This record gives sequence, C-alpha cells and structure tokens, in this order.
Amino acid sequence: MGNMKLDVAVLGATGSVGQRYVELLESHPGLQLAEVFGSERSAGRKYREACDWRMSAAPSEEAADLTVKHPEQPVESPVVFCSLPGGIARETELRLASDGHYVFSNARDNRMADDVPLLIPEVNWQHAKAIELQQKARGYSSGFVVTNPNCSTIHLVLALKPIWDAFGIERCFVTTLQASSGAGYPGVPSLDLIDNVVPYIGGEEEKIESETRKLLGDFDGARFNYADIGMSAQCNRVPVRHGHLETVNLGLRNTATPAEVVEVLRAFRSRPQELGLPSAPPQPIIVMDQDDRPQPALDRDVARGMASIVGRVRECNLLDVRFAVLGHNTIRGAAGASILNAEMLMADGYMSA
Amino acid sequence: MGNMKLDVAVLGATGSVGQRYVELLESHPGLQLAEVFGSERSAGRKYREACDWRMSAAPSEEAADLTVKHPEQPVESPVVFCSLPGGIARETELRLASDGHYVFSNARDNRMADDVPLLIPEVNWQHAKAIELQQKARGYSSGFVVTNPNCSTIHLVLALKPIWDAFGIERCFVTTLQASSGAGYPGVPSLDLIDNVVPYIGGEEEKIESETRKLLGDFDGARFNYADIGMSAQCNRVPVRHGHLETVNLGLRNTATPAEVVEVLRAFRSRPQELGLPSAPPQPIIVMDQDDRPQPALDRDVARGMASIVGRVRECNLLDVRFAVLGHNTIRGAAGASILNAEMLMADGYMSA
Amino acid sequence: MGNMKLDVAVLGATGSVGQRYVELLESHPGLQLAEVFGSERSAGRKYREACDWRMSAAPSEEAADLTVKHPEQPVESPVVFCSLPGGIARETELRLASDGHYVFSNARDNRMADDVPLLIPEVNWQHAKAIELQQKARGYSSGFVVTNPNCSTIHLVLALKPIWDAFGIERCFVTTLQASSGAGYPGVPSLDLIDNVVPYIGGEEEKIESETRKLLGDFDGARFNYADIGMSAQCNRVPVRHGHLETVNLGLRNTATPAEVVEVLRAFRSRPQELGLPSAPPQPIIVMDQDDRPQPALDRDVARGMASIVGRVRECNLLDVRFAVLGHNTIRGAAGASILNAEMLMADGYMSA
Amino acid sequence: MGNMKLDVAVLGATGSVGQRYVELLESHPGLQLAEVFGSERSAGRKYREACDWRMSAAPSEEAADLTVKHPEQPVESPVVFCSLPGGIARETELRLASDGHYVFSNARDNRMADDVPLLIPEVNWQHAKAIELQQKARGYSSGFVVTNPNCSTIHLVLALKPIWDAFGIERCFVTTLQASSGAGYPGVPSLDLIDNVVPYIGGEEEKIESETRKLLGDFDGARFNYADIGMSAQCNRVPVRHGHLETVNLGLRNTATPAEVVEVLRAFRSRPQELGLPSAPPQPIIVMDQDDRPQPALDRDVARGMASIVGRVRECNLLDVRFAVLGHNTIRGAAGASILNAEMLMADGYMSA
Repeated sequence: MGNMKLDVAVLGATGSVGQRYVELLESHPGLQLAEVFGSERSAGRKYREACDWRMSAAPSEEAADLTVKHPEQPVESPVVFCSLPGGIARETELRLASDGHYVFSNARDNRMADDVPLLIPEVNWQHAKAIELQQKARGYSSGFVVTNPNCSTIHLVLALKPIWDAFGIERCFVTTLQASSGAGYPGVPSLDLIDNVVPYIGGEEEKIESETRKLLGDFDGARFNYADIGMSAQCNRVPVRHGHLETVNLGLRNTATPAEVVEVLRAFRSRPQELGLPSAPPQPIIVMDQDDRPQPALDRDVARGMASIVGRVRECNLLDVRFAVLGHNTIRGAAGASILNAEMLMADGYMSA
Repeated sequence: MGNMKLDVAVLGATGSVGQRYVELLESHPGLQLAEVFGSERSAGRKYREACDWRMSAAPSEEAADLTVKHPEQPVESPVVFCSLPGGIARETELRLASDGHYVFSNARDNRMADDVPLLIPEVNWQHAKAIELQQKARGYSSGFVVTNPNCSTIHLVLALKPIWDAFGIERCFVTTLQASSGAGYPGVPSLDLIDNVVPYIGGEEEKIESETRKLLGDFDGARFNYADIGMSAQCNRVPVRHGHLETVNLGLRNTATPAEVVEVLRAFRSRPQELGLPSAPPQPIIVMDQDDRPQPALDRDVARGMASIVGRVRECNLLDVRFAVLGHNTIRGAAGASILNAEMLMADGYMSA
Repeated sequence: MGNMKLDVAVLGATGSVGQRYVELLESHPGLQLAEVFGSERSAGRKYREACDWRMSAAPSEEAADLTVKHPEQPVESPVVFCSLPGGIARETELRLASDGHYVFSNARDNRMADDVPLLIPEVNWQHAKAIELQQKARGYSSGFVVTNPNCSTIHLVLALKPIWDAFGIERCFVTTLQASSGAGYPGVPSLDLIDNVVPYIGGEEEKIESETRKLLGDFDGARFNYADIGMSAQCNRVPVRHGHLETVNLGLRNTATPAEVVEVLRAFRSRPQELGLPSAPPQPIIVMDQDDRPQPALDRDVARGMASIVGRVRECNLLDVRFAVLGHNTIRGAAGASILNAEMLMADGYMSA
Repeated sequence: MGNMKLDVAVLGATGSVGQRYVELLESHPGLQLAEVFGSERSAGRKYREACDWRMSAAPSEEAADLTVKHPEQPVESPVVFCSLPGGIARETELRLASDGHYVFSNARDNRMADDVPLLIPEVNWQHAKAIELQQKARGYSSGFVVTNPNCSTIHLVLALKPIWDAFGIERCFVTTLQASSGAGYPGVPSLDLIDNVVPYIGGEEEKIESETRKLLGDFDGARFNYADIGMSAQCNRVPVRHGHLETVNLGLRNTATPAEVVEVLRAFRSRPQELGLPSAPPQPIIVMDQDDRPQPALDRDVARGMASIVGRVRECNLLDVRFAVLGHNTIRGAAGASILNAEMLMADGYMSA
C-alpha cells in the first residue's frame, strides 16, 4: 500500500459506530484519520471532550486532539466513512461522492440503490465494478458511494457464501439474537434488556432478506441481478453487549452433508486474503467443533472481531443443514466492514491520493 | 371438585420445580400437600430449613412445617408429583404406579413410553385413555404414570394445536431462547449468562422434535400414532430468569392468512376450560398485537403463568406463517402443567380418594 | 374510610412511576382514578394507546379507557398524584395546591421547602401538621403539597427510624446498589448495565444526605428542625430491574448490639399500622436471618413491595452496627409511598370530599 | 532478566484462575510454562481437551499441547503457581516449598501465616525479606511460599498505599460490588445474578479486613507488625463478568483534600516500575476525572488489567475522602498478581535457575 496514506474523515464520529471507526483507524497503515464530524452540539470541541468514549481504553492522543467539525463544514479528506443515522445519510453521501470523495457508508439509505455496490469483500468483490456505472450514471468524476450491509446480514452472508458457491442455496431460515450495541448508544433501554428479550427490531428482518439477495447476486456490468434465494428472518434483541448470534436452516440446491459444509467453510478464502489487506482476517470463517460454541462473550473478539464464527453444523430434519453463526456487530458488522471495503478499493486502484 | 381433597406427595420437593409444585399447591381446592420428599441430605429436616426457597415470598406455613422425607421412605399420599432428575425418575415412578399411586411426572424418562400418556390437557386430553392400556399392560390395579412434556415443547404445542386442527401443519422450524430456570438451580453458571448466550441445551432439540409428534398424534385405544409433522429445532439459553421465547415458522397443509391463524388461536378453548379446572387459564393462548411483544419480563406471568402468549403473527416468505410464542417455563412449562393434568384426571374420574 | 371515594388525577401518568400509580390505584378502597395527564404528544388518546404499559399484566379496563389529558387542561379531581420530572414539577404543584387540590408529589422540587412536609407515614407522620403552616404562609384555603422522599432515601430511613428512636444515630455511611427502574423509562441505556455497574447517579447522594435529616428531624409547629445525624452516601446503578439494595454502617449515640437492633426493627409499628391504612404493610420492616438475603429478585415484592427488608445485621468493626436494606423503588420507593401519604392524610381529616 | 527462562508449573491449571495463569504466561520473557496440573479426572489428557477454556481466544498451541498431570505426580519445574482451592492448598504448597520450589500462591491458606509474605510488589515489597525467616524457621533450603492477597483486597490496598504513606489512614469503610468470575467457574449460579445482587460473599469481608492490616504493616526482620488501621467491609456479588468495584470512605491521620489525594495516587510508582518488571503497569493507579467512572465493562482492561482505576475522589461528609476503585479481579486480582510477585523475586535474586 506504499508509504502514502489517504486522509480520512469520519461522519457521525462521536456515535457508537463512529467511535469504532476511530478506534480501528488508529495506526492504520494506509488510512490517516484527519477529520471528525459530529452534531451541531459537539462541533468546535476537542474529540476527547465531545465524545463519550465507550470503547475499551481511550482514543489515541491523535484522535482525541482533533476538533469536531460541524456537519455543514466542508470535508477536506478524500476518504469518508459515514455512520450517519439511516434516513439522513442519503443526500450527504451522494453530495460528497459528487464532490469527488470516496464515500464508505454504514448507513442503510443507499445500500439497495441500483448503482451502489453493497459490498463484502470476501463475498462480492466483483460488485465494485458498479462504481463505474455509478460514476457515469450520476456524472461523478472520481468520487463514489460504496456501502456495507447491515450488521446481522454481514455475518450471515459470509457464512452462506462458500455454501452458495459449492452447493447452491434455495432457502434460508434465520433467527437472530442480536446484541445491544447494534442499536447504538443510548439505544435500547436497560429495562428492555435486564432479564428480558425483545422479539422485534424495526426494519431488520427486511434488511436481512433483501440485502442477502443483492450480496449473493451478480453484477453484469449494467445491473445487479439478485440471487434467487428464499429468505425468512426473525430478529430478537438479547442482553448481550456485542456479538450477534444467528441460528440458520438451509435448503441446498445440491445436497451436502454437514461435514462437506464444514469443509467448504473452513477452506474459504477470498480476495481480501489474497491481497493481504490489513484488516482482513486470515480466515474469514472459523468453524468451532464444541457443541456449545460460538458464544458472544467468549468468541466475538476472535480474529480481532473481523471473522464470522460458525458452530453446531449439523443435519436439519427438514432441509439440509442447520448451524449457528456469530460475529462482532460493530467491528466486522459495521466499521471494520467499511474499512475493509476501503482497503480493497485502494488496493484495486479505485482511489488515488 | 367436591369438598374432599386428595393428599399429595412431591418428590424432589426442595429443587427448583419441586418448590414450584409446593407454591402452586398452596390453597389448592382439590389437592392437599401432605408429604415432601428430598435427598438423603435434606431428609429429616423441616421443609423450611431443608429448602433454599427461591420462589417469591416464602412457602406457606403449612408446607414449611412439613418434615422432608427420605427417598426410601414409603409414600403415603395417593397423588404423587415427581420432579426427580431425568435418568433417575423412571424406576421410582413405575414402582409407585404399581403400588397404586397416581403419578404425575415432569421428568423425561417415561414420556415417550408406548403406554404412558404425554399430556397437555388442552391439546390431547383424549390420550388419558392410554391409562387403561398402561394399567392392563403393566398389571397396575388403579395407579398410573402420566407425564407432561418438556418446558419448551408445552408452549410450542399449545400454540400449534389450534392451527393443526384448523389447517394442518406440514413443517415447523423453531428456535428457542430459553430462560435460566429451565436448567434448575444451581443450573447454568452466571459466567455463561452474563453478557452471553449459549447456543446449546443438551437433549432439548430432540425432545421438542419427538414430543411434539406424540402430542399432536392420536391414541387409538391400542397405541399412540405419531403426528406426521416435520420438526426442526435449535435451542439457545439466554440471560433471562423465567420465560421461554420461541420463534416459529410453519408450513401448513391448507394455507391460511396470519389473520386466520390469529383467529383460531384466540378462539381456542378446550377441555380444561370446559371443565373449569382450577388451574386452567380462561384462555389458553393469548395473542398480543404489539410489534415488540411478548417479552419474558413483561408477559410471562400473564394468566398466572398458565397461558402461552403469542405475538408477531405474520406471513413467512418461505412457508405460511411465522410468529413468536412465550410461556412461563416452570409454571405452565412444568409444575403447573403437571397439576393441571391431575385436575383433569380427577374431574374425569381416573382418581378416587 | 367510608364508602365515599375521592377522585384522583395522576400527572405524568404514562411514565414509569405514573404507570405504577395507575396500577396501585386499581380497586383502591378510598381513591378513584378519574383523570390521567400526559405530555402534549399523548393528550387526546386513550390511556391504553398513549401508554407503553410496562407493569405486569395490563392496566385495568377502567384506566385503559381514560382519555389522556393535556398538561394545560384543568385538573378536576381533588387529589393529585404528581410524577412530573424534577425541575418542572414545582410550579405546577404549587398552582394546584393554591387551587385547592391535595397534591402528593414524588418529584424532588418541593421536598426541601420550609413549609412542605416530606413524609413517610411510619417515620414522621407528625410533620403533616406543617400543612397548616403551608396553607397559612401561602394563602391556600384547603389545598396543599405533600411530598415523599427519593426512592433510596425511603428505605434507608424506614430502617433507621426505630434505631434512631431507640438508640440515637450519630453517623451513617451508606452505599447504594440501585435498580434501573429508579431512572424511569427509557432511563439508563442497556450498554451501561449489561455486564456493568455505573458508580454515579446525579444528585442522588445529596438527596439521601439532606432528606434523611429532614425526615428524622421534628416539626415544632413553626419550622422543621433537621436531625443531627452525619450522613455520607455513595450511589451506584446496577443491572437490576427493580429493588434498591443499600449497605449501611451506623454509629449510635447509645451503643446497642446487633440483636438489640434486630429487636427494635422487628417490633417497629407506627401510625399507618395503627390506622390500618389500606396500603400499609403489616410490618414496615422485615428482618431476614439468612446470610445472603435480602436479594432484589427474591425479596423486593414481599409485602406487596411496601416494606423494607433488612438483613445481615451484625457488628461493625468501626462503628456499632452494619446491615443491608432492600426495598422496591417504584412501589414503596415512589408511587406506593405517595398513596400511603394520601391514605394517612385522608384518615386524619386533612382531605374532604 | 537475561535470556534464561525459569520453568513453571501451574497447579489447578484447568480452573478459572489457572486458565488466566496460562494465558498470561504466553510469551512471558522470563517464565516458561512447562507443566499443568489438574484434577484426577483431567490428568492424562491434553490441556486443550481437559480444559473448558473460557478466556478470550484459545490457549497457545504450546500450552494446549501439554499433558495435564495428576495431582500426585512430582512437580519438576522450579517455579510453581498455585490456584488450588482454599482449604486444600496449604499442605501442597508447604511440601513443594520444602522440596525447593518457589511457590506463588493465590490461595488463602497460607496468606496470614507468621512467616509467609503476603505480597503486592508496589505496596510491601520489603516483606519479601520474610522469605529468609520462613526458610530458616521451616528448614527450607531454597524454596519458599509467597502469597498474593484476595482479589478485592489487592485493588483496595493498591489505592490505599500512597494515601497511607502520605497522610496516614485511621479508618476505612469499604463496600464491594464484585464480579462473578471472582467465584471461579461454575461459581455463582445464573439465577443468583440475573436481575439480582447477592449481598454476601462467604469469608470475603474478613479477608479484606485482616489482609489489609498485614499488607500495610511492616516486617521488622523477625515478624510482621500489622498496620493500625480500622477496617469495615461489606461485600456484594453483582451481575458483572470481571472487575471488582469498591466504594471507599477514609478517615486520615493527617487531613488532606481530595486534590491532594489525587495527586499522590497519580504520582505513585514503586519497585515494580523501577525494576521495569514485564507485567508491571507503568502507572499502578490510574485516576479518572469523569463523574461516572470507573466502570467494569469499560475500564477493567486498562493497562492490561494490571492497574487499579480510581474515580470520584471527593470529600466525605463524615471522614476525609471517599472514592471508587475498580480492578480486574482475575488479572491484577489473582494470576497477574502472582506473576508480578515472581518477576520481582526473580529480579531481586530470590530465585535461581
């Protein structure tokens, strides 16, 4: 990646995912945190003061000393990581792309747009080519918007991809047990999660069902062709800080044994591993053999939170296989996903200094 | 039920489900707690001292003053509620039945036996007839063993029954989020459930899958014919004290809309309601309309823990309907289930004083 | 209390403490819920719809059918229970008192005022006489404002009162472990209380320290004379739904053994018990003997949440005694406290229909 | 520490603290994990199989490949870390010392013995001299037993030490909020810690009160002279995985302001920092300025779990200062404490290869 680093701005930098961006960018070899944008209220203050830091340890001195910029100040950095809330991110992201910025968004607003890549580097790196379509269609010179999926979709689809490639998947039932941090901070009230489960997360089931089809589909140069996979999701919020756990039942096109499924999961490597991207986990999918794993508290930080952890791969009485998958929702499920997207596009020449 | 009460012995009375039996039998109109049996260690002590009482409030004075009997002391009461651990209950239960006792068991050991009713009064009260078969086959004069299902099976099958009757069910996927008390006390270590989920409960998936088929099947006078329903279960333990929550996807024989499903759930009444049994909930299934319900902390105690609470009934993209069901696992899911069984058999003349 | 009921309005009725008022007033023998006031947003809607009900079960049909009134609509009921947030309650309460209403407030705003009783019926029922002073000083004809203490103060002071009377108390160190519901709903974010403790509750330590001195002091007809007791409090928020636990160290004026302290705690009865008020616990203080009690999950609902539960009374190496006290923070610690105040003033002739 | 590493045996290696020893010894510059001892049941199996590993990630390959030894097999390594349960550790430890081993114990059994150092390197490194006394008194040639304090004592006394040195301390009240892992695994049942606090930990208060006096006392070459400090502790178990939080009130000999106390805490450095020991935190005590810190979930891992984190230093109404202190209970509170003891004695020439 050479000696040159690209400057980075984080939008929504004081929020939960914003803090994770700042944490993960500390000593990044190719990206240099240069600007942090916050709300009107926090603008003008040092990041250390504006931000109620809730990651482990403290932000780096370098980040802590940045002055938080007002949402309407101009963005100077070429690379932009956007963790604005869904619903208000769309216009900002498109405007920045139009102004020549490389925008990596964790918001839902532009994910399903016809010319915006929804990208997991291991899964559909070929979709990056849609950037050219986007630039042409929207008249952007060099800027673009690339998005990463929803936090529960990412880990599901990482686990589905090698199975999809090897055997085909007709149907997928998934029930999620999602962590509190998926809703940001303050997010879910503690009275909702002490001695309790909430069997509903607004919009989440629809995101999982639609994003999966885009991710497993192909981009033919002109359009995204959605994958023909039946999806049914049920989402729950559980009293866990970090780490989404999901139980999955799969009906395959070509039947396979649990052992064969484990084999393709374990063998899976993809473009980020080939390119040796700094944030890429050596093994995108880790399969555990113990009956009672993966568990959020014990396994979410494996591979620095960038892998998906699969366990309990076994036959399904009704379909072919069932299993559980776990992943860190604010690292590989959000900020880390976005940073890996940037690393891949950098390596593949979509971004110049 | 007349003025006459039947005397009751509780086996395993100091344990978690045993305590629930004692609590629920307080001021019961037809059953009188007369004997409590415990381990060798607790035998000979007053129940109040032998027992680390963990229900709300305190045991009744009457119960507290009972002296805990040794497992090998003779049982004098005609009715026996058994909450011995699975694996050691079988012989005890059969011996007591042979001696003329009416044995109601919460243990798994005899549930799937060919001549033992596995009973949910609202679901398969007709199975009680197998008692005659059992008595004949085993040479019992008046005693018998009747079992109730596993705690997660009961609430699932209560919710399935009206749908099964109205539309038929071909396939059922279920993922459970089960409470800590399902494993008894001490049960699950706190380090396994603070900020964590355990995606495994030994033997539980098999129980749900097999018991459901017996419960929804019929008894033809000579044998149990298991229901032809495909079952696939995935079980998780979550940081909740009481209340199992389950997400369910159903493929029906005759398709139905969510509204039609809600209608049959709400209209469901069965034999315990007709008989007006003391522990019967007026409405066995309560359907909530709010998006984010049922929740364990808020809804498990509805109808004194004897109903199943259903919510989020909606179309399934892949099958017909999906929904969530919640129920109290140690009341309707264990001790209360057993007591309701006894009430029905009493009303139906299977037990004499 | 006769057959006549007094009509009641609840201000802030859709909030956490407001819901508790509504729950506790159901079938109250002397008070009839007649009006519920909410925010601008909820005004005009039925209570059942305006309110995200989070008590067990559902609100009574009667309450659910009330139409929520706008904060600026006139209050018609003679009795007003106020659970408006601290900071905005003061003027409303004084205006209503001036208009002739009997105002019972759970807000902090008027608690420490020179002519407002801060009342725990068992502790300082004599302070009710300050109502006359208040009416005279402020020119109220028949209305008044009476307040109840902060939720952690109430249970501490209930436990202190018999000791204060019997032996005198020079110094009190208290560390609280407070439940989530003490902060209302949405209140404390779940990320702050999953696998965590927050060693700070804004303003709480000051409230405990100052309110205790007013409560244990006397009212001499003209002014409140604060008790001469040294107080030092440290407050923590812990992952518990309901029930504040407090560890206490006491230095007495006249030394006493733990057994003597237990004796006066157990013997304690006061005016609400003499009057047989409907919400009065038969025994205001319950002392448990087991080493590891009281515990919030097991003991908070004892005596319908209206008693204080004391345990671990033992010698202190540095002072005289130390112990733990637990109490339900939204029942006896808030709405129930307020209702008991109303019951006593009704019985004592301060309120007429 | 030279290039030479000393071989290490861990007793109780499959337990909770045992696993922490194994984790912390991975790539240690001066200590080489050579032997793991377990129970009879686990003896003969590979560590990876015998051990239900519950630290983050997995044990090192090197550790995982060790074969667990039977408790009665001879110990070959010169250095022994002992995490046997209290009550059964005493004889084993003394026998090993007698056989020439350097025994570092986390068990309570020998802590208060007249010739056994109870050591926190920053606090009372001079007590190491008692080793000579011990060897002479007991006839050991080169072996010895050195102990570290109880997990809640360590963090308390680290925070007390600079204040003790600067101002003297007459009295100390402490209330603890202790994490689940302090009781090991399986330890505390989840039903005791979901939505609950247990206001009792057997023997803990006595340990805090007695160990503190030994730690702050001096060793005069012939005996330990206990510090003249009044101690009163109240201990609670809270629903937290790791990290004990303690609220402290101090009466000083020479009064000091909170600012002066903060100053001495921040300035504190001691022998481990001077020696640059590998596990020594650069700053043994970290003082946080934010009102609501330290918090277990956010701050327990600061300085790799080896520091004590102090916050809310403020005046006490009754004594001089009050504050909260937090520390990781199985790192600096147990295994890390023991390893730091070994590092210091190695540097100071008490151990030879």
